[in-house]
Amino acid sequence: MSYLLNVFNKVCKQCPVSSRSFVSSPQMQSRAGLIFRQLFDHESCTYTYLLGDVSAKECVIIDPVLEQVERDTKLINELGLKLKYAMNTHMHADHITGTGLLKKTLPGCKSLISKTSGAAADVHVNHNDVVQFGDFCLTVKSTPGHTNGCVTYVCDKESMAFTGDTLLIRGCGRTDFQEGDSNTLYDSVYKEIFSLPGYYKLFPAHDYKGLPYTTVDEEKKFNPRLTKNKEDFVQLMKNLNLPYPKKIDVAVPANRVCGIQDSF
Amino acid sequence: MSYLLNVFNKVCKQCPVSSRSFVSSPQMQSRAGLIFRQLFDHESCTYTYLLGDVSAKECVIIDPVLEQVERDTKLINELGLKLKYAMNTHMHADHITGTGLLKKTLPGCKSLISKTSGAAADVHVNHNDVVQFGDFCLTVKSTPGHTNGCVTYVCDKESMAFTGDTLLIRGCGRTDFQEGDSNTLYDSVYKEIFSLPGYYKLFPAHDYKGLPYTTVDEEKKFNPRLTKNKEDFVQLMKNLNLPYPKKIDVAVPANRVCGIQDSF
Repeated sequence: MSYLLNVFNKVCKQCPVSSRSFVSSPQMQSRAGLIFRQLFDHESCTYTYLLGDVSAKECVIIDPVLEQVERDTKLINELGLKLKYAMNTHMHADHITGTGLLKKTLPGCKSLISKTSGAAADVHVNHNDVVQFGDFCLTVKSTPGHTNGCVTYVCDKESMAFTGDTLLIRGCGRTDFQEGDSNTLYDSVYKEIFSLPGYYKLFPAHDYKGLPYTTVDEEKKFNPRLTKNKEDFVQLMKNLNLPYPKKIDVAVPANRVCGIQDSF
Repeated sequence: MSYLLNVFNKVCKQCPVSSRSFVSSPQMQSRAGLIFRQLFDHESCTYTYLLGDVSAKECVIIDPVLEQVERDTKLINELGLKLKYAMNTHMHADHITGTGLLKKTLPGCKSLISKTSGAAADVHVNHNDVVQFGDFCLTVKSTPGHTNGCVTYVCDKESMAFTGDTLLIRGCGRTDFQEGDSNTLYDSVYKEIFSLPGYYKLFPAHDYKGLPYTTVDEEKKFNPRLTKNKEDFVQLMKNLNLPYPKKIDVAVPANRVCGIQDSF
């Protein structure tokens, strides 16, 4: 008996190559599930998310960047996926969306954004609407504050949420331009994001330090802004004195029509 | 019956909030499993990987970057993890490793690199050695070619491999400096990486286009260099005419002693 136990412990400790045939691994389950790629644009530090259903071969892309459309199109084609929606978390001020150009390069793809954003799109979504691709879906949660039209896309099946500029890793989006309102942003985070289960992974639209994602639990404990009470948070946001966004005068008008490509 | 079917379809389509209580989700399984963060250094485009066991609270870091040690230390502490090994896939020429400084800031941590690398370390590993942290482990596979001491760390339990500079996404490491040898690199990729199951995820030490990872299947199909036959690959690598690596004269001597901090 103790001999068997020793053998068992030895095998477990060595994690032998034969473990490749285990069928219970979470990774192996995901082979028949979600394709997920977190893509990065170095210029604007934007994260773009590709989510696809392996079986249905259908995908969506969240917050694509104009300059990265060639890369993203190539990847979607290589993975054998059909792009259903090119969607945005909000009307960005720091980069031009790739949505319009993706529509041209991948026919059949529809643009999608919140109705409140005021931007043109094939599909306008509202709070609690559901965006479906294959067997997966994203629930739209209205999270205004950075802009009025900001939304968070929640994928309950995978315990993930895409928070746009509402919540960043150990930070949050600016509230000093467009329709920014720090009171509203604070309420959005607490109502729609911090109310998710603590283990949910949160994927922001940007990170400037090379961190990939966070969790609800982590932000509730370690976010230096949003662990403050509302009054202190509003005060802090008022005194950030950030520079005028470099690209805002080009990006916002372009994003209002899903990217500059419409004027080509 | 058809009424019930309609209700079922509707519920499935809407992915309601109640699905948060499903226990079969791969994400939820990973709550009791692997902590995984792919970290990025903008200056050198290096990926650093943090892998931790949720239960044992033990972690390792692969290819840390000197300038990011403060960020990495903060994250490790916030996640409540104990760093067991600061390990490298090889003796880098493009950045200085954070290994030595991590040893200073997180006592108890040991440095780890392949014996063949020629670099100083607390632990030297060889082909087929196993690096254990909690219930997880990484098997060392010798994959020379970029340098003699290059290794790939394979985590069979999670179907992942960390390929260093041996295999990059749709590319591979240079073979024109240090002990670079394109013949050897080609053999390493085919013998130790392309022989893994096709669905294994491959995480490189660098990416310059904002792509996060790839799979064995993808690289076998789409890697523009390694889908060539060996002769053509060697010819291609010979004619790349790449510039002299900016940091090599500082980085390699520093990395030989696990980072410059030893001379502080």
